[in-house]
Amino acid sequence: MGIPVKITVIGAGSATFSMGLVKDLCLTENLAGSHVTFMDIDEARLERIHRLAERYITELGGKITFDRTTDLAQSLQDADFVINTAGGEYGSMEERIDLARKHGYYAGAPFGVNYYNLNLMLNVAREIERVCPNAWLIQSGNRVYEGTTLMARETNVKVIGLCHGHYGCINVANVLGIDPDKVTWVAPGVNHTIWLTEFRYEGQDAYPILDEWIATKAEAYWQERADHPEKYGLEDQMSRAVIDMYRRFGLLPIGDTTRGGGWWYKADLETRLHWYGPTGGFLSEVHIGPFLKRHYERIEEIRQVAEDASRSVLEAFPPVKTREQQVPIIDALTNDVPGTFQINRPNEGVIPGIPDDIATEFPAVIDKGGIHPIKMAPLPKKIMLEVINPMVNKAEWELEAFLTGDYDLLLDGLMMIDTFQSGGHTVSYEQAKAYLDDFLAQPYNQDMAAHFKRREPSWAGVLARKAK
Amino acid sequence: MGIPVKITVIGAGSATFSMGLVKDLCLTENLAGSHVTFMDIDEARLERIHRLAERYITELGGKITFDRTTDLAQSLQDADFVINTAGGEYGSMEERIDLARKHGYYAGAPFGVNYYNLNLMLNVAREIERVCPNAWLIQSGNRVYEGTTLMARETNVKVIGLCHGHYGCINVANVLGIDPDKVTWVAPGVNHTIWLTEFRYEGQDAYPILDEWIATKAEAYWQERADHPEKYGLEDQMSRAVIDMYRRFGLLPIGDTTRGGGWWYKADLETRLHWYGPTGGFLSEVHIGPFLKRHYERIEEIRQVAEDASRSVLEAFPPVKTREQQVPIIDALTNDVPGTFQINRPNEGVIPGIPDDIATEFPAVIDKGGIHPIKMAPLPKKIMLEVINPMVNKAEWELEAFLTGDYDLLLDGLMMIDTFQSGGHTVSYEQAKAYLDDFLAQPYNQDMAAHFKRREPSWAGVLARKAK
Repeated sequence: MGIPVKITVIGAGSATFSMGLVKDLCLTENLAGSHVTFMDIDEARLERIHRLAERYITELGGKITFDRTTDLAQSLQDADFVINTAGGEYGSMEERIDLARKHGYYAGAPFGVNYYNLNLMLNVAREIERVCPNAWLIQSGNRVYEGTTLMARETNVKVIGLCHGHYGCINVANVLGIDPDKVTWVAPGVNHTIWLTEFRYEGQDAYPILDEWIATKAEAYWQERADHPEKYGLEDQMSRAVIDMYRRFGLLPIGDTTRGGGWWYKADLETRLHWYGPTGGFLSEVHIGPFLKRHYERIEEIRQVAEDASRSVLEAFPPVKTREQQVPIIDALTNDVPGTFQINRPNEGVIPGIPDDIATEFPAVIDKGGIHPIKMAPLPKKIMLEVINPMVNKAEWELEAFLTGDYDLLLDGLMMIDTFQSGGHTVSYEQAKAYLDDFLAQPYNQDMAAHFKRREPSWAGVLARKAK
Repeated sequence: MGIPVKITVIGAGSATFSMGLVKDLCLTENLAGSHVTFMDIDEARLERIHRLAERYITELGGKITFDRTTDLAQSLQDADFVINTAGGEYGSMEERIDLARKHGYYAGAPFGVNYYNLNLMLNVAREIERVCPNAWLIQSGNRVYEGTTLMARETNVKVIGLCHGHYGCINVANVLGIDPDKVTWVAPGVNHTIWLTEFRYEGQDAYPILDEWIATKAEAYWQERADHPEKYGLEDQMSRAVIDMYRRFGLLPIGDTTRGGGWWYKADLETRLHWYGPTGGFLSEVHIGPFLKRHYERIEEIRQVAEDASRSVLEAFPPVKTREQQVPIIDALTNDVPGTFQINRPNEGVIPGIPDDIATEFPAVIDKGGIHPIKMAPLPKKIMLEVINPMVNKAEWELEAFLTGDYDLLLDGLMMIDTFQSGGHTVSYEQAKAYLDDFLAQPYNQDMAAHFKRREPSWAGVLARKAK
């Protein structure tokens, strides 16, 4: 028996995430007796997850207790761990994508839109500093990269950023037909741009297995997925784009990294279909429909279970541990059950060539003594030049925009930043300006528009800024 | 009377430059008795400059001696100072611009073409290391930024990079109607992207004079230049683009910096005419003709003086010191005549936030004790984000391409790098690939094509690179 803790879940209305957490907690003997406070601003969703969790624990016979609140400060009272999975609110993804398409862009929002998520994260971190300064903050919602960087700079909160992307390594093993449990891998970088630097199968370098697969089986694999898209997921860890990135960089990109590679993979739908497979990759015209459909179906399914007290919650959420790292990390930090985890933290020398105060993603041993990062070898120079360095500057640019409210940093960013992850690039000044202004004029964007007020040329203003 | 020195001029066939140097030497009493060796691979041009210099010294009655050679190693024998003004050879500017336009680009050559200049610079620096390791190398030909960085990293030669751009400050004063001799200015950055961080007139901040000019006189100034382009130079230190950059960044861009600002200032000729004035800025369709005409007229004029022994060389090159810094720097280092100069050297902490081993441009006091850099205040964050950081990564990218011969770094660079200085940006993969391959296929590019051999996807090759 371990030590019970108090865990606060911010944005708990996301039932898939919260129910996964409840399952993992119930199945972790060491954390029996722990208490979970669900917090969300959406009362209906909050009430639903609370009810589901209570029914789950009753059916399973576990020893976790729950309560709920819509008040952030109250939710943080006495918290040992805060898991933030909330996202900023600013219209629906459909609305944003329609607007982007109208202006000739692929991506769902212009540069700087992380304003909402960054604002929310920083507010939560500051409130933790005030209410429960010793709590660990486990950041589990986007954007982990910029957000972890920002919170670590602006507050003293102990923050860990988590993402699922690195599990793409398991998909790699499955596609290659080797047992994932016999594979050793390391995939560091910055969140959403990580690279398979170590890849062994039964202790031997497994890159030759990948090369063999590319030479003899990749074409058939891509053909099969094109012929029978209904049999496969919406995205592909082993698409042509991924293998082309491997050719360019010498290392395989993992997880969300596979969505990037350069704007030219995304020039038009035909190009996307070639590089990313039959859905054209993340947020393409073909991908977006099924992607949102799956998302809403999952929400509806959970709603139905929640509203039908006669249904078994255990059946809807079979009691098998997820692959999420939150609960094992809580166990490691609380009960000294050591483990190696893929986390995001300020780099502080872990990956050579990245500034200390930029959050990077890397493996770390975690135990009651805290976080013990495993020092990484340098990434290939080409990855630093084409991917990481521009991503570092992009984060600095975005955080400066966020902190200053400078409209020009948004507009110039939209025009100048073509990172590895970009959804397509700007053709003209007029296009960028019209898109940004139209976006800021949307009713759901009043907050952001107020923050990034357009400053017309004003020489007095210029001097005032310069004097700072 | 000071100490006479031996000066070697590489690429001495450039008569404008060499005759300026001869004049400055003849007019610097301290360096009487010095010897100049002219070196060039073009024997005709070399012989012409040698003859002109001899006639000049005879007419003027100075005490400088000259010889010439086409052999690099021989030219370096016993040199105290080596001035490298040579450029790599790869076709004519007209050919390169025609090719760029054919593929829908504005710039005269694709990313990576500095290969020729870098190669030449590195060869010269290595030969100096071998033949005259104690000599100072004064790099006076493009690209000062990447070249100084490269030579300082790869050799132990004492290198100083020089450029004229910073004299744009004098143009600023002239346009504002204030006496340049009463103006104090500091304009650091990286070569071709420098910013007026200090600007005083008679000891008082002169930015308000600029603001006043913008508010009350700028429009009339731009109109006058548009109405009477024949009365003005081909480029404009105070164009609309420059003033817009000042609005965006809070500091005035100086010299070659005024040619940049973002690809959107250069979207098409109409846009260029608006932002850069009646020639449309550097290398526009309107600028290129008069620019080359002026260049060839100057060469022809010098040729005529050289071939007509009855003409006075003193009349063609009136004995007034130029504003070039080479000879004053030589005097400072040799005869302890201290001065403050605008130089390019590895940053080593001078401008905060730029890596130590990237060459930056800054003022330094030079005397017989050597170079004493003046430490600069940080540049505004926005300039770092939008201009300097991308320029630093661009230099690293270019040097990595140069050192490895990696074709993909050229192609990806052409597609991904839209710096502040770019001439226009790539619309499609096919466009970039066709342009780069067509460029490398030109007869004048055999050297570069051999260096950047296209590597087709080869999984064995990928692994070999990865293993390095």
